[in-house]
Amino acid sequence: MTPKPNILVYSADQAEAYAECIRGYGFSSVKAASTLEEAKKYLPGTEVILGWKFPTQCLNEPIASSVRWFQSMGAGVDDLVSDTNIPENIILTRIVDQFGGYISEYVFTYLLYIVKDVPRMSKAQLENRWDPFISETLAGKTMGVAGLGSIGAEIVRKARAFDMNVHGLSFSGKQAQLVDRHFTSDKWKEFVKELDYLVLTLPLTEATHHVINRDVLLAMKPEAAIINVGRGALIDEGDLLAVMRSGHLQGAVLDVFETEPLPKDHPLWRMPNVYVTSHLSGPSTRDGVSRFFAENLKRFLNEQPLQGLVDRNRGY
Amino acid sequence: MTPKPNILVYSADQAEAYAECIRGYGFSSVKAASTLEEAKKYLPGTEVILGWKFPTQCLNEPIASSVRWFQSMGAGVDDLVSDTNIPENIILTRIVDQFGGYISEYVFTYLLYIVKDVPRMSKAQLENRWDPFISETLAGKTMGVAGLGSIGAEIVRKARAFDMNVHGLSFSGKQAQLVDRHFTSDKWKEFVKELDYLVLTLPLTEATHHVINRDVLLAMKPEAAIINVGRGALIDEGDLLAVMRSGHLQGAVLDVFETEPLPKDHPLWRMPNVYVTSHLSGPSTRDGVSRFFAENLKRFLNEQPLQGLVDRNRGY
Repeated sequence: MTPKPNILVYSADQAEAYAECIRGYGFSSVKAASTLEEAKKYLPGTEVILGWKFPTQCLNEPIASSVRWFQSMGAGVDDLVSDTNIPENIILTRIVDQFGGYISEYVFTYLLYIVKDVPRMSKAQLENRWDPFISETLAGKTMGVAGLGSIGAEIVRKARAFDMNVHGLSFSGKQAQLVDRHFTSDKWKEFVKELDYLVLTLPLTEATHHVINRDVLLAMKPEAAIINVGRGALIDEGDLLAVMRSGHLQGAVLDVFETEPLPKDHPLWRMPNVYVTSHLSGPSTRDGVSRFFAENLKRFLNEQPLQGLVDRNRGY
Repeated sequence: MTPKPNILVYSADQAEAYAECIRGYGFSSVKAASTLEEAKKYLPGTEVILGWKFPTQCLNEPIASSVRWFQSMGAGVDDLVSDTNIPENIILTRIVDQFGGYISEYVFTYLLYIVKDVPRMSKAQLENRWDPFISETLAGKTMGVAGLGSIGAEIVRKARAFDMNVHGLSFSGKQAQLVDRHFTSDKWKEFVKELDYLVLTLPLTEATHHVINRDVLLAMKPEAAIINVGRGALIDEGDLLAVMRSGHLQGAVLDVFETEPLPKDHPLWRMPNVYVTSHLSGPSTRDGVSRFFAENLKRFLNEQPLQGLVDRNRGY
């Protein structure tokens, strides 16, 4: 191990700001690149990359032969795992344990918006109209959380504070004790059929691609709602549109899409009861990412296991 | 004590439905009245009244001489406490422990709506516009809860799940251990000055009337927000309007008003950053009220202390 690894920070618009943060943690050899050209210039001698939308094609070239570890600035790494430009011997890590608080606030923002009927209250105010009514409550409703990593676990914790029943589905089964009922990944239809809300926090892998299809959607209760804060391609968007057009499902809250940005003319923008947001539920903040990376750098120097280590076979 | 007390249920629109509920708990002598005339007809011999907006003028008359206990259908009893028509020897009780879950969902609906900037996300969707942005979070913010009864305590519990700092002000000091910092009622300005959100759950009494006035509002941080789920007259509405027009405070969420229904031409309907709702944050549901009353009836018959007993001197 090198006591002071040569670090390259890559970001199209914030490279120097990130580099400054990393230097602030005591690492002096930090270069910043925001273009392919700059990346190529600084790669020789680089051992560690902290990157977002990195031009991976240059990782195959001799100039990148010293790179041992690539830290992504995001939590989802489906693009990196499937990227054949990245040599197998480069260690991949992703950000973990940073997004649970943020994403869970997003989830409860929309759950409460829907269940308390904010649109009805807003309309009454617009019309200067006194309109007392008794809304539904989250308490007593059943939420299903698909994916029980750090994000799913935090959503479960807040659901408890709202006195909800919580079911869970996970591939590893590791966190099954968090939920009232746990389902394995061969039991999707049994999992969804009793839910009022289905929240997707899964990573995108071969096993989860389009895992929410017509069959699963139709197995849900007609008045249920689905919330996706994982990856767009967990859901077959064509199936979702068809099923909702048929009157099934009360709502869909979508922060992620098969194609991002969501194309201007995509029908999801205009679907009734569909809430479209711009992949903002769990933002990578500079402070959060830098702190996580600095902590991982210390582990790297001390030859300790890295946090957020990606298993390419598992897919995340 | 009578083993089967004569019960009169009074409600302008739901008297018979309530009476049926109470009979369902095994009480056979239950009359239902929805007008002053019907109330007068059934009062002779009545020992217990379950009522909402009861025509109290007849409680002073000889026909009401057998009435020993009046159970209100609501949590707030400022109107009953100040009502000189009600003889002192009639025991007053209010509903308690029923509204915490419901009201706290309302509070977090609007806190999240504001902090996550739902209006910005809605506007982007209306314009088919991809607009990723990093919102604020509730985590790390400081909430002050004025009034630490069952409603305030439930708001505190949920605030913990959102990793907020929680301060509290209460008159009795009884629940001071729930919060990170506790203030007594002579320390309003010290209490509010560090808050991001001030939530009012106090009862309306002589001591709390217009307790939120110009001085207290100006002691708050300019970017703070206020949420009132207690009683309208806790706030001097004229002062609130003046202070907000001067640009102080980020928002006000008001479910209760000095005059209800809020008059059609009241300026609060149209104030920017003011959310007006129709006294719906903590509805008395028939099931909840009936269950509470039936439980209290059993206590009454067993000569046990009643739940929700009103202290006329304290004012609630």
